[in-house]
Amino acid sequence: MDRLSRRRLPPYTRRDTASYVAAMAAALRQLARKNDLATLAYLLDMARLEAETEARRAEDDNSGPILEGS
Amino acid sequence: MDRLSRRRLPPYTRRDTASYVAAMAAALRQLARKNDLATLAYLLDMARLEAETEARRAEDDNSGPILEGS
Repeated sequence: MDRLSRRRLPPYTRRDTASYVAAMAAALRQLARKNDLATLAYLLDMARLEAETEARRAEDDNSGPILEGS
Repeated sequence: MDRLSRRRLPPYTRRDTASYVAAMAAALRQLARKNDLATLAYLLDMARLEAETEARRAEDDNSGPILEGS
């Protein structure tokens, strides 16, 4: 079952995932800010920064799809 | 323009927003984990915890919609 669900994952790369999380975190941060959830907005901004860093790193590494080696 | 866009916001409460962000952060954390983005997963978990805390707080406060007082 675990092997099956893993096989069905689309071949997104680490970079794709990190970029997606960065965009989502930025959008959620805006939502938090508009609702005066300052600490939450700050934490989401940290997540966005980390995601952007990882996206850049994965690009430099030219890393393969996440299924590699599984 | 600012007043206009504010008026057009749907009447979601702080609690609605915090609950939504908590759910999204949990989902994004799973994605990060599956892609071995450990630090990112950790930051998203902190965001989830903060969002859940705020959702609970907003419920206790019985706070009104975000448009209140604007």
